[in-house]
Amino acid sequence: MRICILGGDGYLGWPTAMHFSARGHEVVAVDSMVKRYWEAVVDVAPLEPTPLLQGRAAHWYKKTGKVVEVVIGDIATDPGLLHRLFRDYQPDVIVHYAEQPSAPYSMMNQNAAIHTQQNNIIGNLNVMFAMHDYCPQAHLIKLGTMGEYGTPNIDIEEGWIEIEHKGRKDRMLYPKKAHSLYHLSKVADSNNLEFGCRIWNLAVTDLNQGVVYGIDTLEMGKDPELRTSFHYDDIFGTVLNRFVVQAAVGSPLTVYGNGGQTRGYLNIQDTLQCVELAALHPAKAGEFRVFNQFTEQFSIMDLAKKVQKVSLLYDLDVTISHLPNPREEMEQHYYHAIHTGLPELGLQPHHLTDEVIAHMLDRAICAKETVRSVGLLPRVTWKHGMDDKGITGVVRE
Amino acid sequence: MRICILGGDGYLGWPTAMHFSARGHEVVAVDSMVKRYWEAVVDVAPLEPTPLLQGRAAHWYKKTGKVVEVVIGDIATDPGLLHRLFRDYQPDVIVHYAEQPSAPYSMMNQNAAIHTQQNNIIGNLNVMFAMHDYCPQAHLIKLGTMGEYGTPNIDIEEGWIEIEHKGRKDRMLYPKKAHSLYHLSKVADSNNLEFGCRIWNLAVTDLNQGVVYGIDTLEMGKDPELRTSFHYDDIFGTVLNRFVVQAAVGSPLTVYGNGGQTRGYLNIQDTLQCVELAALHPAKAGEFRVFNQFTEQFSIMDLAKKVQKVSLLYDLDVTISHLPNPREEMEQHYYHAIHTGLPELGLQPHHLTDEVIAHMLDRAICAKETVRSVGLLPRVTWKHGMDDKGITGVVRE
Repeated sequence: MRICILGGDGYLGWPTAMHFSARGHEVVAVDSMVKRYWEAVVDVAPLEPTPLLQGRAAHWYKKTGKVVEVVIGDIATDPGLLHRLFRDYQPDVIVHYAEQPSAPYSMMNQNAAIHTQQNNIIGNLNVMFAMHDYCPQAHLIKLGTMGEYGTPNIDIEEGWIEIEHKGRKDRMLYPKKAHSLYHLSKVADSNNLEFGCRIWNLAVTDLNQGVVYGIDTLEMGKDPELRTSFHYDDIFGTVLNRFVVQAAVGSPLTVYGNGGQTRGYLNIQDTLQCVELAALHPAKAGEFRVFNQFTEQFSIMDLAKKVQKVSLLYDLDVTISHLPNPREEMEQHYYHAIHTGLPELGLQPHHLTDEVIAHMLDRAICAKETVRSVGLLPRVTWKHGMDDKGITGVVRE
Repeated sequence: MRICILGGDGYLGWPTAMHFSARGHEVVAVDSMVKRYWEAVVDVAPLEPTPLLQGRAAHWYKKTGKVVEVVIGDIATDPGLLHRLFRDYQPDVIVHYAEQPSAPYSMMNQNAAIHTQQNNIIGNLNVMFAMHDYCPQAHLIKLGTMGEYGTPNIDIEEGWIEIEHKGRKDRMLYPKKAHSLYHLSKVADSNNLEFGCRIWNLAVTDLNQGVVYGIDTLEMGKDPELRTSFHYDDIFGTVLNRFVVQAAVGSPLTVYGNGGQTRGYLNIQDTLQCVELAALHPAKAGEFRVFNQFTEQFSIMDLAKKVQKVSLLYDLDVTISHLPNPREEMEQHYYHAIHTGLPELGLQPHHLTDEVIAHMLDRAICAKETVRSVGLLPRVTWKHGMDDKGITGVVRE
């Protein structure tokens, strides 16, 4: 297949590019590099130095003889980029990761919030329009998030729900109550895409992904030239990745509130598996197909205790610190999300075993000299933004 | 009360400004004038010349001694504008009309679609952020649209719905399946605002308005210097307004498809009444309150036949022309929308009588020499955009 990966420089984008390339598919990876700018703005860096996309693709070619084509450009601000690319390349599959991926970033201040929704919503619209005009048969695989749903008191279905109301019925889009302005940008994307399927007959799979953890995939192994960007900070670090690094450096695991918040989680290797399964079993023309993409549910305290337990084997004295919750969210709630679609396509989950945590901890311990204290504690609250600068980022008179 | 009207130059914005001003409230009207640019882009103009906001406010003062303050600025591209305004003016009520208001405009081509979602979503976010920092006690009255809901097979509730699913219950946001990228921009606004209420304790009333018709209000009467912009074209003209002008000039009434499409409608005078009722009975801090703002339901054919009937009194020979539907929508469907919230606050509807249509027809006949043929027929299809230029607006090679 001809596969176009948008956001190819990212934590998931680059591993996905290698995954498809290794299996003999033609891959083009597109990125604007803007996430590296966002990292600088919030003063964070990945755990280990991460080569640029161009260098990783060159190294991949040297090592395997396989080509990942690289296109540097911004799908949100240059609509013509995708016109040219889709016209000339005629992808069978478009995997769209090219979004600002952080909830705290979106809640930092007005400028970052605006940038998040503009980048994500407009970029996604540009994908839809370019598909409509240049590759209407292609299958779009769009990365969404379980955080779009919030924490409803009923089961979370896969994107759609049959509602019976006053004696009548309809199949409706599942009502969402998202957790941040970042998550809301993804809700808007999903709604725009469902419209694109309905009106233009596009074929779309929306993958509402849980929280991803993990440091490497089969294709990158231990090769430092093929690494992906592993974040442990308060802005771009997902929670388990952050806990592992906090454990490695002897910093308390930062649990927000009582830690009863329950979410879906998955190993980065399963992200690749899920995206591949979606690509091999595409949505039909006109179908807006939604999968909830995670393998296990945990509360934050479950994760903290798992990391604490494995750390004992390393003689690390790991404490758990309950911080006032910087987010606005329920800390005890019902949570049951259906996730049968991807297993039905053949997903074989990698579960979160002690060995998986130990493997991550090994890497974090090796790199611990480079860990910075910035971002080990949360800096953004949902009520007041980054530190005390106010949510608009304006210094008041 | 101190009332800030965003979009004060528009069809509804200016009449709302006069309505509140006439009742002794302090009013500031904000507009970027960008809609006058959009009108030029699509080659349309209102039925009668419409003075600029500044001139109408000056004439209003001369005539009544009452001040409508005018601020020219763009809330979507200048976030600082609302910081300064809300800080200095401290509004009690913000009425937010400042959005690109046309579904066909949003479906014209990629550029117009992007502009619509960017203008509407980012402008609305800027309102939320400026409220958060400078007037968190103010009550935001946001104009939404019934078109956000689409045409579900169950009753449309007012913004929220109690869902029972697999033996559990929750009160959820009503699931929406909007009719165009314009309507989707309003869905995104509603979702962002509900989040603002939840997280920042904002007080918001979201008015999901039906299709507005009507040419004047009490305050403007027949004074040409106080007119509002009445559109009859395919882009900015609402359906009844368009039918009346088509009848006046002897052009067939353009019914899309079989005309079974049913929607909620209201008189422009009732828009003012509804917004006033919402202002006098504000939402509570933290409350995202939704009203469905219309007074009667009609199908397109109902309206065409009403206009045809009244036209007989004027010896006008009015025919009804069924065009291939340029939109993607159901032409026969269940439609029952609850709209009890505003009547409970005291709304006294102006119904669509023959006299109301006759009054509009009088005005249209007076102005008929200025009516242009451009826009009497639809130029935008949901599948292909404006004419044959393709939905991206790019001339293909």
